[in-house]
Amino acid sequence: MDAAIKSRGDTYADDSAMTISPLAPTTTPEIHPVAGVTLAAGAAGVRYTGRTDVMLARVAPGSSIAGIFTQSSTRSAPVLWCQDALTDGGMAPAGKPLGIVVNSGNSNAFTGRAGEESVAALAATVARVLGTDERAVYQASTGVIGERLPHAKIEAVLDDLAAELSPDAWHGAAAAIMTTDTFPKLASMTAQIDGKTVTISGFTKGSGMIAPDMATMLGFVFTDAAIAPGALQVMLRESAGGSFNAITVDSDTSTSDTVLLAATGQAGNAVIEDAGDARAAGFRAALDDVMRDLAHQIVRDGEGASKFIEVGVTGAETDAAARVIALAIANSPLVKTAFAGEDPNWGRIVMAVGKSGEAADRDKLTIRFGDILVAEQGWVAETYREEDGAAYMKGAELAVTVDVGVGEGRSTVWTCDLTHRYIEINADYRS
Amino acid sequence: MDAAIKSRGDTYADDSAMTISPLAPTTTPEIHPVAGVTLAAGAAGVRYTGRTDVMLARVAPGSSIAGIFTQSSTRSAPVLWCQDALTDGGMAPAGKPLGIVVNSGNSNAFTGRAGEESVAALAATVARVLGTDERAVYQASTGVIGERLPHAKIEAVLDDLAAELSPDAWHGAAAAIMTTDTFPKLASMTAQIDGKTVTISGFTKGSGMIAPDMATMLGFVFTDAAIAPGALQVMLRESAGGSFNAITVDSDTSTSDTVLLAATGQAGNAVIEDAGDARAAGFRAALDDVMRDLAHQIVRDGEGASKFIEVGVTGAETDAAARVIALAIANSPLVKTAFAGEDPNWGRIVMAVGKSGEAADRDKLTIRFGDILVAEQGWVAETYREEDGAAYMKGAELAVTVDVGVGEGRSTVWTCDLTHRYIEINADYRS
Repeated sequence: MDAAIKSRGDTYADDSAMTISPLAPTTTPEIHPVAGVTLAAGAAGVRYTGRTDVMLARVAPGSSIAGIFTQSSTRSAPVLWCQDALTDGGMAPAGKPLGIVVNSGNSNAFTGRAGEESVAALAATVARVLGTDERAVYQASTGVIGERLPHAKIEAVLDDLAAELSPDAWHGAAAAIMTTDTFPKLASMTAQIDGKTVTISGFTKGSGMIAPDMATMLGFVFTDAAIAPGALQVMLRESAGGSFNAITVDSDTSTSDTVLLAATGQAGNAVIEDAGDARAAGFRAALDDVMRDLAHQIVRDGEGASKFIEVGVTGAETDAAARVIALAIANSPLVKTAFAGEDPNWGRIVMAVGKSGEAADRDKLTIRFGDILVAEQGWVAETYREEDGAAYMKGAELAVTVDVGVGEGRSTVWTCDLTHRYIEINADYRS
Repeated sequence: MDAAIKSRGDTYADDSAMTISPLAPTTTPEIHPVAGVTLAAGAAGVRYTGRTDVMLARVAPGSSIAGIFTQSSTRSAPVLWCQDALTDGGMAPAGKPLGIVVNSGNSNAFTGRAGEESVAALAATVARVLGTDERAVYQASTGVIGERLPHAKIEAVLDDLAAELSPDAWHGAAAAIMTTDTFPKLASMTAQIDGKTVTISGFTKGSGMIAPDMATMLGFVFTDAAIAPGALQVMLRESAGGSFNAITVDSDTSTSDTVLLAATGQAGNAVIEDAGDARAAGFRAALDDVMRDLAHQIVRDGEGASKFIEVGVTGAETDAAARVIALAIANSPLVKTAFAGEDPNWGRIVMAVGKSGEAADRDKLTIRFGDILVAEQGWVAETYREEDGAAYMKGAELAVTVDVGVGEGRSTVWTCDLTHRYIEINADYRS
């Protein structure tokens, strides 16, 4: 089949598609190199022209790796490959590096047997150029769904990329994996373990949770700390709960979502074998910060976003229930359009709480916009003035806090508003 | 508080708000009177000016009644009143009628103790004007949330409405309960029970599932068949599964959704005591038709709708699983915007199936647009041509069928597309 689904990047109706999100960070972050990690980016022409679209990372021998993936039942061939590879234990083969190869422009999802062949071919070539085993090669693809990945185009640039690997190529790597993203997304922190300074640096892409055909969420985070694979997996999963798994743009889940965390051990700390080890507390706080920063950047680049919105829920039966309620608010089209319209429509918040299916005491419900008490005890607050709510809504960074009055459960998620631009990006083109 | 949330009807940016949906029925349905049912509509000025906003129905002594309601935990005062009243057994008091009073413009939701006072006051006045008991008065309110219902305005017109009750006032009643609806929604059928002709007539409102502040779904269906309350409740609930509970505009659930079904028994059939009674089969088929017709009209008036979309799922583990998958497709913003863009983007269907959380065999997935085979066995169909899909998408009535390849479960739901007009209606005004 020929180009069953066109790239949106090819068919934007106007140049504004390339306008950087108004919510983008205003400064370019400084990214600290991570000992044992080298990167390179290149242009393979998978779909795009005039830009890079392949990223190769080499992670030194002795490293551990962890991963989390989409829960989709129609997940892509590279996701299935990575999940299988992780069953080997999450360590680089003895004396050999780990490889990570990522392409944009084609997600290699819903491609049947051909997708598996492409993954196997890429693993073989990356293993050759990096001098490692095929199952030590992790992969991710993002872009159009349902078209065969032209893996030979990627293979054709891998020798060059292997020769160009550099400890400083973070921004280039982050740019190569972008699809509808309007800016590259990077973050970097340091922490201490056993008096040793350890670094965490990473990058991500995505402009929705969303979308099989362009806006998959991918994240790659690296550290020079020494952490055993089992502990690393626990740290990644728990950190994701407050970052990549706590954001939503439009409630749609990609077939390709992937976050990998690799640890080279070159910082020289004694290996952390248990995620609960007190020596790792500072590291874990820094990891949380990096992951949350990256996740927030995705929301800030949400398709059509004009507002960055934090939704906090307290007083639920459990933390899980609080999360369900927070997501019901964050995913409600009526709530999201109200924010787009700068309308302090707290009635829609009440509606979303009610539809969540979780316990809430209507007559104890408290709603705040920022510090403004909007509703309490089942009705609008006596002190609330509509003009205060309206003025608050004009900001670009908004917080909604809801206490549902039945318990101690709490959760925070982040989302953006639903604007005309979202419709333009997702409807106003023809394939 | 003064007008915390403005009526959207007051603040549309342009006259196109009043344009009738392009998906509206092109003919006005003939509504058969139902023996024992009389109706009246009036203008109480609850919020709107220059239109009717109150509907009163009198349902003759000897009638039974059944109801289904929103599952919201923040449901409105009238919903709680009706649910409580039904616990009396669903029969009119001996020798006295049932009353139904409905207003538009204010939903009496999230109004605390004041909401309960309004409901009690209305029940007392309707009981007086109809000569019945307060708990025989059923109520529904739709409109702005969080503002005290000015029930005295409604009470002030009830004597006149009681004097004007007519067996033919169906269209007037349907118009009085509209909020953002662009056309009144009515349906009528006849059937046979025991050789007696029985009539089913009803009306509904809603232009989303959605929204506490304007677009609640209300439905009122009447028949002259003789059906015991328990059987009537079962029939209503089961019929709703394929009608009012099988539609979605934007996944948001109102605090006020209410569907009532009343049966006067004046057709003269021997009372149906059991919903499974074979004598009721024809009646139930007609009830299904009326309910589905009304539900479809709500989708056809979905906010901003330009396409009416049937989503059928087969091959799921259970019917319930099929319904979850169908709703995942029907509620996906990316699927809905693709339809708005007339884009045959089957990749987004694959994504939605995958995110549903229900079992699906990626490698047996079959997708059809109408009769066009789009994908099978985990990849695009060899016979599929993109131009066929694109041509199909230009229609206003579309069907997507998905077989997920794991079982015998099936479900059908109906939805509409997600357009700029939805954003305009829900964001492009200021309160």
